[in-house]
Amino acid sequence: MRFRLDIAYDGTDFSGWARQPGRRTVCATIEEALALILRRGARLTVAGRTDAGVHASGQVAHTDLPTSVDADELVNRLARALPEDVRVTSIRPVPGEFNARFSALRRHYRYRVCDTPWLADPLLRNQVVPWPRPLDLASLNAAAALLLGEHDFVAFCRRREGATTIRELQLLQWTRSGSLVEAHVSADAFCHSMVRSLVGALLAAGEGRKPVGWPASLLKLTERPSSITVAPARGLTLIGVDYPPDSELAARAAITRNRRTVP
Amino acid sequence: MRFRLDIAYDGTDFSGWARQPGRRTVCATIEEALALILRRGARLTVAGRTDAGVHASGQVAHTDLPTSVDADELVNRLARALPEDVRVTSIRPVPGEFNARFSALRRHYRYRVCDTPWLADPLLRNQVVPWPRPLDLASLNAAAALLLGEHDFVAFCRRREGATTIRELQLLQWTRSGSLVEAHVSADAFCHSMVRSLVGALLAAGEGRKPVGWPASLLKLTERPSSITVAPARGLTLIGVDYPPDSELAARAAITRNRRTVP
Repeated sequence: MRFRLDIAYDGTDFSGWARQPGRRTVCATIEEALALILRRGARLTVAGRTDAGVHASGQVAHTDLPTSVDADELVNRLARALPEDVRVTSIRPVPGEFNARFSALRRHYRYRVCDTPWLADPLLRNQVVPWPRPLDLASLNAAAALLLGEHDFVAFCRRREGATTIRELQLLQWTRSGSLVEAHVSADAFCHSMVRSLVGALLAAGEGRKPVGWPASLLKLTERPSSITVAPARGLTLIGVDYPPDSELAARAAITRNRRTVP
Repeated sequence: MRFRLDIAYDGTDFSGWARQPGRRTVCATIEEALALILRRGARLTVAGRTDAGVHASGQVAHTDLPTSVDADELVNRLARALPEDVRVTSIRPVPGEFNARFSALRRHYRYRVCDTPWLADPLLRNQVVPWPRPLDLASLNAAAALLLGEHDFVAFCRRREGATTIRELQLLQWTRSGSLVEAHVSADAFCHSMVRSLVGALLAAGEGRKPVGWPASLLKLTERPSSITVAPARGLTLIGVDYPPDSELAARAAITRNRRTVP
């Protein structure tokens, strides 16, 4: 039977989500805890393969487990088996058509910087990037608005053979609370390092180093320019993933698989 | 000239505020950074001497420095000199009557617990205490309301010779946001371990292990009972300190010094 897992982690001490030999990764840590508890291997498929140092409060994965598994009991046992920097916050049965990656309608990320001379709040230092030059919220938002919509984001991605870099950027908005400046970013999906590249370009406009129109002007390029500084991983958190109603899961997965491949 | 310092820290890796030989303390860490930058000793007087593991987002201290000191420049230099888990967020000149400890009108603390089977959010794990049994907000608040006002809080304190344990508890209120349950606690001042003792007693009422009237019933005791479990330090953060207008600083300090001593 297929199960959906909701997952949160502090990415600081992980080499990202994806398994890598000899590295501490989120995927391997959870799969090993599951194997220990269930006495059988379990493979996770995840909505967003986050990079080293990137956090998640609303990551989603799926796996197939025997029908006999008690989901609530498994949450309790994982709470004791897992290290404190990763938590499985919910496990529940889903239709067999549910695919954490391909059924997803959109992903939501948050990026946090703090623009004070004293750098970042000690209690949030693992998830906020110190930005000691003042940021102008109006410039950040004006520059962000020009990036919305469906574009080829190849200038903001690391290109992969045979995969499209066309994405629909649905939300890119900055808010300020005191010295904490946050970007709220949503898209159907993101290419590799896309949020951090977008944020890096926007921060240049936000501090006045580049004109407001500069980040959007990069959309016409055919590869990532060296003028974009990819923003540090620690500011980024995957905060949620949206899925369609159960009846539309299979159709959504077919659309996604189709779209992601260059014809 | 007297200066006010606003200070924030993650208490996890500190043995509290107060200097102790051979221990890493917040006070010694800041005093040593100041001495390095100013090439002279500087002694801090603080509003709240937090215990080992307790955090602060709004701690206040004062010190006397030469008039020639540029406060903004000192904030910048401290940002580079201090470790990431402690920040001096502001330094500004204040009247000579300002005393961070004795001029304070009231202190505000926050205590955080998370009552889910999966324990605490990984990104907040240093400042949230996992409480795997469900807490009832109405019971927490009913029990809390009975503690408000001026009382001898000796049952919730570690007694010190020659010091009163009479305090005015001005705010003690619980809120819930999802699984995050927070106590907001304000008083003119707090005795040693008072917030954590109050929270420990209230959590017993909140999970139904003790009746709602139990915490307030302890106010008639003349020493701290073993039935109170002092809540863990990591959930506690000093979030702010209130001071009167400059014209009332001296008068306020005189009242405080007077009140704190048993006649």
